[in-house]
Amino acid sequence: MSTYIPPLRDIRFTMEEVVGLDSITALPGFEDATADTADSILTEAGHIAEGVLSPLNRVGDQDGARQENDVVRTAPGWKEAWATIVEGGWNGLPFPSDFGGMGLPNLFNTAVHEMWQAANMAFTLNPMLTQGAVNALSLYGSDEQKAFYLPRMVTGEWTGTMNLTEPQAGSDLAAIRTRAVPDGDRYRLSGQKIFITYGDHDLADNIVHLVLARLPDAPAGVKGISLFVVPKILPDGKPNDVKCVSLEHKLGIHGSPTAVMSFGDHEGALGELVGQPHRGLEYMFVMMNHARLAVGLQGLAIAERAYQQARSYARDRVQGKPAGWTGSGPAGIVHHPDVRRLLMTMKSGIEAMRGIHYTAAAVSDIAHRHPDPNARYEASQRVEFLTPIAKGWCTELGQHIASLGVQVHGGMGYIEETGAAQHLRDARITTIYEGTTAIQANDLIGRKILRDKGAFAHTMLAEIAGLAAELSAGGLASLQATGQRLAEGAAAAARVVDWLVGVAGENPRLAAAAAVPTLDLMGIVAGGHQVALAARIAKMAMDSGRDHDGFYAAKLATAHFYAEHFLPQASALERTVISGSATVMAVDEAIL
Amino acid sequence: MSTYIPPLRDIRFTMEEVVGLDSITALPGFEDATADTADSILTEAGHIAEGVLSPLNRVGDQDGARQENDVVRTAPGWKEAWATIVEGGWNGLPFPSDFGGMGLPNLFNTAVHEMWQAANMAFTLNPMLTQGAVNALSLYGSDEQKAFYLPRMVTGEWTGTMNLTEPQAGSDLAAIRTRAVPDGDRYRLSGQKIFITYGDHDLADNIVHLVLARLPDAPAGVKGISLFVVPKILPDGKPNDVKCVSLEHKLGIHGSPTAVMSFGDHEGALGELVGQPHRGLEYMFVMMNHARLAVGLQGLAIAERAYQQARSYARDRVQGKPAGWTGSGPAGIVHHPDVRRLLMTMKSGIEAMRGIHYTAAAVSDIAHRHPDPNARYEASQRVEFLTPIAKGWCTELGQHIASLGVQVHGGMGYIEETGAAQHLRDARITTIYEGTTAIQANDLIGRKILRDKGAFAHTMLAEIAGLAAELSAGGLASLQATGQRLAEGAAAAARVVDWLVGVAGENPRLAAAAAVPTLDLMGIVAGGHQVALAARIAKMAMDSGRDHDGFYAAKLATAHFYAEHFLPQASALERTVISGSATVMAVDEAIL
Repeated sequence: MSTYIPPLRDIRFTMEEVVGLDSITALPGFEDATADTADSILTEAGHIAEGVLSPLNRVGDQDGARQENDVVRTAPGWKEAWATIVEGGWNGLPFPSDFGGMGLPNLFNTAVHEMWQAANMAFTLNPMLTQGAVNALSLYGSDEQKAFYLPRMVTGEWTGTMNLTEPQAGSDLAAIRTRAVPDGDRYRLSGQKIFITYGDHDLADNIVHLVLARLPDAPAGVKGISLFVVPKILPDGKPNDVKCVSLEHKLGIHGSPTAVMSFGDHEGALGELVGQPHRGLEYMFVMMNHARLAVGLQGLAIAERAYQQARSYARDRVQGKPAGWTGSGPAGIVHHPDVRRLLMTMKSGIEAMRGIHYTAAAVSDIAHRHPDPNARYEASQRVEFLTPIAKGWCTELGQHIASLGVQVHGGMGYIEETGAAQHLRDARITTIYEGTTAIQANDLIGRKILRDKGAFAHTMLAEIAGLAAELSAGGLASLQATGQRLAEGAAAAARVVDWLVGVAGENPRLAAAAAVPTLDLMGIVAGGHQVALAARIAKMAMDSGRDHDGFYAAKLATAHFYAEHFLPQASALERTVISGSATVMAVDEAIL
Repeated sequence: MSTYIPPLRDIRFTMEEVVGLDSITALPGFEDATADTADSILTEAGHIAEGVLSPLNRVGDQDGARQENDVVRTAPGWKEAWATIVEGGWNGLPFPSDFGGMGLPNLFNTAVHEMWQAANMAFTLNPMLTQGAVNALSLYGSDEQKAFYLPRMVTGEWTGTMNLTEPQAGSDLAAIRTRAVPDGDRYRLSGQKIFITYGDHDLADNIVHLVLARLPDAPAGVKGISLFVVPKILPDGKPNDVKCVSLEHKLGIHGSPTAVMSFGDHEGALGELVGQPHRGLEYMFVMMNHARLAVGLQGLAIAERAYQQARSYARDRVQGKPAGWTGSGPAGIVHHPDVRRLLMTMKSGIEAMRGIHYTAAAVSDIAHRHPDPNARYEASQRVEFLTPIAKGWCTELGQHIASLGVQVHGGMGYIEETGAAQHLRDARITTIYEGTTAIQANDLIGRKILRDKGAFAHTMLAEIAGLAAELSAGGLASLQATGQRLAEGAAAAARVVDWLVGVAGENPRLAAAAAVPTLDLMGIVAGGHQVALAARIAKMAMDSGRDHDGFYAAKLATAHFYAEHFLPQASALERTVISGSATVMAVDEAIL
């Protein structure tokens, strides 16, 4: 079995040098969020990842969460691990101290969660969703609700869930049927919810369900959905009318209980309205945007985990004589060019994803905290633009990388004991939950590109083109090539933006057909931006004699690899979007 | 659960119109292999696929093969299903009547096995390997060995295995250690073999192991490996010293027992030498080339299965209002443009793969049977060129399509009961066994491109360019676009061939780094060739008023989709090969 080693140096490089921790420490309230603080937080969270969560990853996969006599039990050791998180106050890392949080930036939380998701994705879904529920209640809950729920949810003594999906209402939440009928100043809910992550479990004393339901007078569609807080255990200590009907048998994340939840089998589940009636979907989207970035982070995390395992196997496994090999006898497969190509695809993709995620996290800190409203607005635009990319592109790539991890292992990768296959199975959900890749792509082209007629997209792409021009003009061949490929990618993306703006108003179906290839293109270019930024920094470090062990030289080489192996696809995707979108609907569904 | 419906119309279109069944029926000995024969064979084999094998696919996945008290038991119902195959004489379909075969073309066998692999891949591995063993013994066995083994293996009363891999000898068979010591006119073998598909089971009375081992005087490396036939039950009815030590726990194909085999724990396993000493690897490659095409066919088959299931779900599942939808209320997700894009990616990829496989099968029939030695030679070159593409590219694409099948299902795809996830799990082995994708790619660039300095590759590409020019000059816009994209793809491939020939002699490491992107590029162009051929035929059918139900129009539209969604990647891959291969080894393995 593989062990997970927190990639602290890469994480710190991205936080401190690529994203720029200084700009976060400079924000009001984050004065303590220094490099030293980061160091101690990352080190300690890394110990938990490596020493506590990673060893429980396989037992979670094998023994999974089980329902026994109406009680949902997590895998052996998981209760103790959760207690460690709660005792350390880790769940409260990004929340203000009012409710017991540490008051640290999202950037820190992102780094911590990257390590935990890599160590044990099925486990870390629980804090991930609990943090999302805390966010939603912080923003929209009444003072009483906040005072009652938040202190215990911030610590993680109580955990939180999102109850959206129903059998007939998946991607289309307009179809929700769960009903909420007033009963005094509370409501009685009844209905069935499915795919509820950590909908029931034995880790916490209470589970706080945030539930979408319809009031009796609700208009049809998405504008008639309200948000309710429905605890498993009522404030008077009695059990609520909420029941886990069953757990799903899933391809992966076996350690994470995915529940079918029934609300109100008897007298109705008691809940309180959160915020205003009929605005539930709007509130849930706040939670969902957090969750989308967090799921996107799983894409990065599982890729890093798969990469470490594949790299370790490739170094140890001796097999054959690699092409061009000058040593005598067989060599570690890491010396075979195609194994190296697989590993470099994984490594460069991971560095691109880490740049995107840490940038999105830092920009969200700026969007919340910057004293200048213009800076906040610009930052919020940026995080909104990056969110569908960070979710959609990074999960598709994370899945691909997990599959490459299996491939590096050859036949051993197909054997479950090796562990590589688990990463692929776990990763496979990430392009589906919290909005499929198509939903991310439609968000990107609809709300983030078409709504302002491509203005912000062009701002971002011009920035990237500027960096590309700078690199292309430099003296180093690999940097020049990186700049040239990035320039070509950004130009292809800009033409696609213009095409979308030009045609989509008249033809929404054509735009929808173009959505995922556009997302893919934007992801490749956004990832190229990040590795190019890293390369520029690496070049400066090398020029100033700071590259003592080849770390920075490797960043340059990795960016160059990315430029030649990922960025050329941008032009192909441009072609597919512009010439290929019209071919999508050309075959009648009856004859498909 | 999904049912598998044999796609008989598509299969017959490919056999009869794209590949041209006439040219096979015209071969000596295949006079009876007419369209009518094909019709009855395909119909009957389709009934077995749909009625016998497909219903056992899930029970095989869930109950799997198990070892109980030294006996390996297959899943419930599998014994009866195998008896059906044996009774029908199906296993002997492509073998001469001397040993009880039907004497039909490989093309027919390919169509039958496509259906069976789609219906139940874990099951069909058994006839697939048995047919490979029959091939090897037919070619290299002594008359006595043939007389003893073949009649019962052709019927399938006895099954066959390939015993190559050892713990230290996976892709590198030079490292094989299993020993064979002479004992009279037989040999006693001892050693451990791993990953032996159907190495033990309860379907047949005997299992005929073809085993690679070293004679005492064998030179080191691949030139010291001999091939032995080692039956589970000896001719005198006593058990041989061969034991299944354990079965692997795999990601998929649970119904197929993957055995760790121990030969010679006691007095040594008795076996006979097949052919000449030290030529075992050469013989095994005959079996392997058959197995590579057969595994490549699994890529097509699992893609078709995944596609049928996804299409069926997409038609039934109602969710949301598709972009540009003019109906009232929600619609089947098949009307959502991105779902259609996924389905069209699957469908067009499948048609490309089917064209490649049926062509390879037909060409292998010509290579064996054509009266003109030049035609045989040309055909054998063609099948050799297509083999790594049919294996490497089709399995990568099959896996991708199985994953898209999960995606079409949304959250339901992640639930094991749905069945979509099984296809992905099953498919994941296909890029690994019988030579990983990298091994196929190295075969393609080494033996099939560089050995003749690109001559045959250029012949193939010129043929494709000719078709592309013909289509580009035609009157129909979609056909013109298809031709243009195909021309661009073929030109990119030709430049890559020239680059390989130009640089690889001096730099084998660079060539090896370029191998898989080159395979991918050749696969995309070869697939484009097939859908373009189909489009040309479809256009003629439409022009002559034969398209009564839109079948041919759909072929045109599918080719156009492929042209705009697959073929543009050819230029990107050209860039990656030519500019990117040097970046593969640039980061030292220590700092990866």
